[in-house]
Amino acid sequence: MYEDRIKPRSLWSKVVTPEEAALHIRDGMTVGMSGFTRAGEAKAVPLALAERGRREPLKITLLTGASLGNDLDKTLAEANVLARRLPFQSDPALRKRINAGEVMFVDQHLSETVEMLRSRQLGPVDVAIVEAVMIKEDGSIVPTTSVGNSATFAMLAEKVIVEINLTLSPVMEGLHDIYIPTRRPFRGPIPITRPDDRVGVPSIAIDPSRIAAIVITAKEDSCAAIQPPDAETKLIAGHLTEFLTNEVRRGRLGSSLAPLQAGIGSIANAVLHGFLDTDFHDLTMYSEVLQDSTFDLFDAGKMVFASGSSITLSPERHDQVLHDIGRYKSRLVLRPQEISNHPEVIRRLGLIAINTALEADIYGNVNSTHVAGSQMMNGIGGSGDFARNAYLSVFVTKSTAKGGAISSIVPFATHVDHCEHDVDLIVTEQGLADLRGLAPRERAAVVIDTCVHPEYRDLLRDYYRDAERTVGGQTPHRLDRAFALHLAYQTHGDMRRAAEVPEAAAE
Amino acid sequence: MYEDRIKPRSLWSKVVTPEEAALHIRDGMTVGMSGFTRAGEAKAVPLALAERGRREPLKITLLTGASLGNDLDKTLAEANVLARRLPFQSDPALRKRINAGEVMFVDQHLSETVEMLRSRQLGPVDVAIVEAVMIKEDGSIVPTTSVGNSATFAMLAEKVIVEINLTLSPVMEGLHDIYIPTRRPFRGPIPITRPDDRVGVPSIAIDPSRIAAIVITAKEDSCAAIQPPDAETKLIAGHLTEFLTNEVRRGRLGSSLAPLQAGIGSIANAVLHGFLDTDFHDLTMYSEVLQDSTFDLFDAGKMVFASGSSITLSPERHDQVLHDIGRYKSRLVLRPQEISNHPEVIRRLGLIAINTALEADIYGNVNSTHVAGSQMMNGIGGSGDFARNAYLSVFVTKSTAKGGAISSIVPFATHVDHCEHDVDLIVTEQGLADLRGLAPRERAAVVIDTCVHPEYRDLLRDYYRDAERTVGGQTPHRLDRAFALHLAYQTHGDMRRAAEVPEAAAE
Repeated sequence: MYEDRIKPRSLWSKVVTPEEAALHIRDGMTVGMSGFTRAGEAKAVPLALAERGRREPLKITLLTGASLGNDLDKTLAEANVLARRLPFQSDPALRKRINAGEVMFVDQHLSETVEMLRSRQLGPVDVAIVEAVMIKEDGSIVPTTSVGNSATFAMLAEKVIVEINLTLSPVMEGLHDIYIPTRRPFRGPIPITRPDDRVGVPSIAIDPSRIAAIVITAKEDSCAAIQPPDAETKLIAGHLTEFLTNEVRRGRLGSSLAPLQAGIGSIANAVLHGFLDTDFHDLTMYSEVLQDSTFDLFDAGKMVFASGSSITLSPERHDQVLHDIGRYKSRLVLRPQEISNHPEVIRRLGLIAINTALEADIYGNVNSTHVAGSQMMNGIGGSGDFARNAYLSVFVTKSTAKGGAISSIVPFATHVDHCEHDVDLIVTEQGLADLRGLAPRERAAVVIDTCVHPEYRDLLRDYYRDAERTVGGQTPHRLDRAFALHLAYQTHGDMRRAAEVPEAAAE
Repeated sequence: MYEDRIKPRSLWSKVVTPEEAALHIRDGMTVGMSGFTRAGEAKAVPLALAERGRREPLKITLLTGASLGNDLDKTLAEANVLARRLPFQSDPALRKRINAGEVMFVDQHLSETVEMLRSRQLGPVDVAIVEAVMIKEDGSIVPTTSVGNSATFAMLAEKVIVEINLTLSPVMEGLHDIYIPTRRPFRGPIPITRPDDRVGVPSIAIDPSRIAAIVITAKEDSCAAIQPPDAETKLIAGHLTEFLTNEVRRGRLGSSLAPLQAGIGSIANAVLHGFLDTDFHDLTMYSEVLQDSTFDLFDAGKMVFASGSSITLSPERHDQVLHDIGRYKSRLVLRPQEISNHPEVIRRLGLIAINTALEADIYGNVNSTHVAGSQMMNGIGGSGDFARNAYLSVFVTKSTAKGGAISSIVPFATHVDHCEHDVDLIVTEQGLADLRGLAPRERAAVVIDTCVHPEYRDLLRDYYRDAERTVGGQTPHRLDRAFALHLAYQTHGDMRRAAEVPEAAAE
């Protein structure tokens, strides 16, 4: 009955229930699991693990590619199975435990986790759990809708558990390109010079004797909770496409632009969606997650190729794309996240990188992770891999949140994930700030004039002028007032009441 | 008389006085000048330019590799010639003008400036001024003690002025390896796989017709103002070499470690000096500036090869090394800073990167540039290029400054150049914090226990505990107290009086 999905007959005896497979995982172990942006995660064994965690002491370190779907992080967190979690998550229940200090969350650049595992600065990995479309004759594993860190987890782990997902077509074979950099000090260049280069092999090669268990599942990926474009995200998209049109006019870019990267989420998706209404053509992507917008651009004949590490779709798009995957396959490749996010390739290709800011300061430092400097949202993800090395590093955000009570542009970012040196453009629905080649004093003027919501413009201008007059410097700051907006929100529920916050000056 | 230094006879007529050469530079122009860490800067034309600037309106944008010697930045700043300056400087007089807002300083990752010029996101470059040992038969230019951005400046500039420095031996020919990445979208991998790989050509190839003027000089580089190792820097070196010895013992590194990078300055130099007293051998460097310590390690037989972008030496070492350069030449290569600092090569080689922090916070975010968040010191330099991509990213600093009145470890860094994700080790004379694989709450405990000066330990522990108790989160912060130490220093001249600073909480 597994003939078409588990080619080596010798492995048929390894097929067990999720509960039996989960017994390979013991208290204190490190588990590396497939899954990237809610795509391609192992779906059955983690649930069995959570079930056991409710009955017996069981704490693990869980490594993944990025976020998991099917509420797995929630279920595992609520079963108190997670002692440590890396390198990314986006689940409200897990987030709550992370912020309570109950789960140690190690927030990492997504390209770096396996680099640290391989050099034994993290690890070892005891068990890998990898979702697969099939196991091939040679024992190699064909992943599903994401590659993430699965290949390296499977290569390094003591034992490998494979979850064969019957809902996904074997036609997916050939979609993936598994390339793992060779060991230092003998490492050579990664030979990717175009988004459509295939430089590896289509499946994860491991010694089949390390496959400890195989589980058969029939559960689909969770769909993306993406909001459709709204008036504000459409304005953001419009500012950016207008800017890019001007860059083409000035001869800095061709009409196919440069390979695009867009972070996960509604704003980045809406921005890419905005490219539908432009004259750009023959677009390519070299990104991490491929969302609805990628397939919309394919269907409109605007995009010719997309490289990613995962496919994450809305309910509207999910069935159609996955059932038609054969039709898209020649225009797609899924890579290990180490390669989709690799500084070497990103710098070489010269990407236009579009990522979402949680907040930005008037000088262009960006916070992608921490609400009010303390509370973790999701993690830095791949934004640092891309922003640092892109040809053009773009951060997008709505200028306000919570009905205007929060300004996304603040005097001083409460956490800095992307320093001024890594941020070229900031775009809100108000406008686009082109910060290239500007000194911080000049950046502040442009950011305040173009990106800030009118209700906050005077507040930020006053902060800047006061800091410039009383403190001066390359990047004028009043440390006694730097967080006045945040403190006003904490106290009064509204950043606009910042003037009521007393200074922290010494007596 | 120029036969041995200006091989093409047709160029002899281009030899002029510095004043005549400087006339090619007009008000409003962008000038790209050689010079990196006080090594290999053009020495005569900038002085003539300053002289003119004192008599007539003359404002330029000055691009260099990094800092200049011979007080050139001072002279140019005092003559009010500098409107804009990038990407790095370290001169007190210029710094004063930058912090007064009189000179716009664009602080950049040192690998990125020419990338932006080439893609016309900055520029154009009107005139390049390049110091050279000689001009070869084919018109190509042999640089001197640094390569920096000289090659790209010379290739892109409308006009090129060459300063032939007669104090430097023609034996330097062959020391340099000029490799420029090809244009996107046709860019291939940079083929460097070992520090000693030579992948380019030994001189800067340009069309000789673009050489507008040649000036003959006989002025030496400024020597480095490096302090010899003291008790505290020796302790820092000891902590790091002990850590590395343990890494070798645990099998994570071999006894030749990995290629080393060390930032400019006394602390990094002292740390490298500390490698003399270890059992490590066959060391290599892949760094930007090569200081005394590199040559001490050569002479002691500890180091076998060093790649850099410049050679900057103390008065004690300067004459000996430059007169003996033929003896060292086979073990040295000087590259464009784009290549010495290239993320692609740094990640591939897996460096141990050692850079100096101005301040670090308890969670491991590092400020390399701004005193109290506002006043520029020197610039980020290459520290971001290296720290982000290194195998092991180390930041060193003494735990206190100003006789104990300033703690280098603070609750919240007043400027973040290197986010927590990019910092593996923090080392002070007090100890070494190994932050790899730790969540922020764990990082805080380790940093406070090992790196902080005993006089500040309680203060920082109290901050952390209070933030953890009252705010919580992934990275607990009290925004109303985050800068209390800095405010105490501003008001009372001593961070230890932080308790006297009132909170910035709203009424």
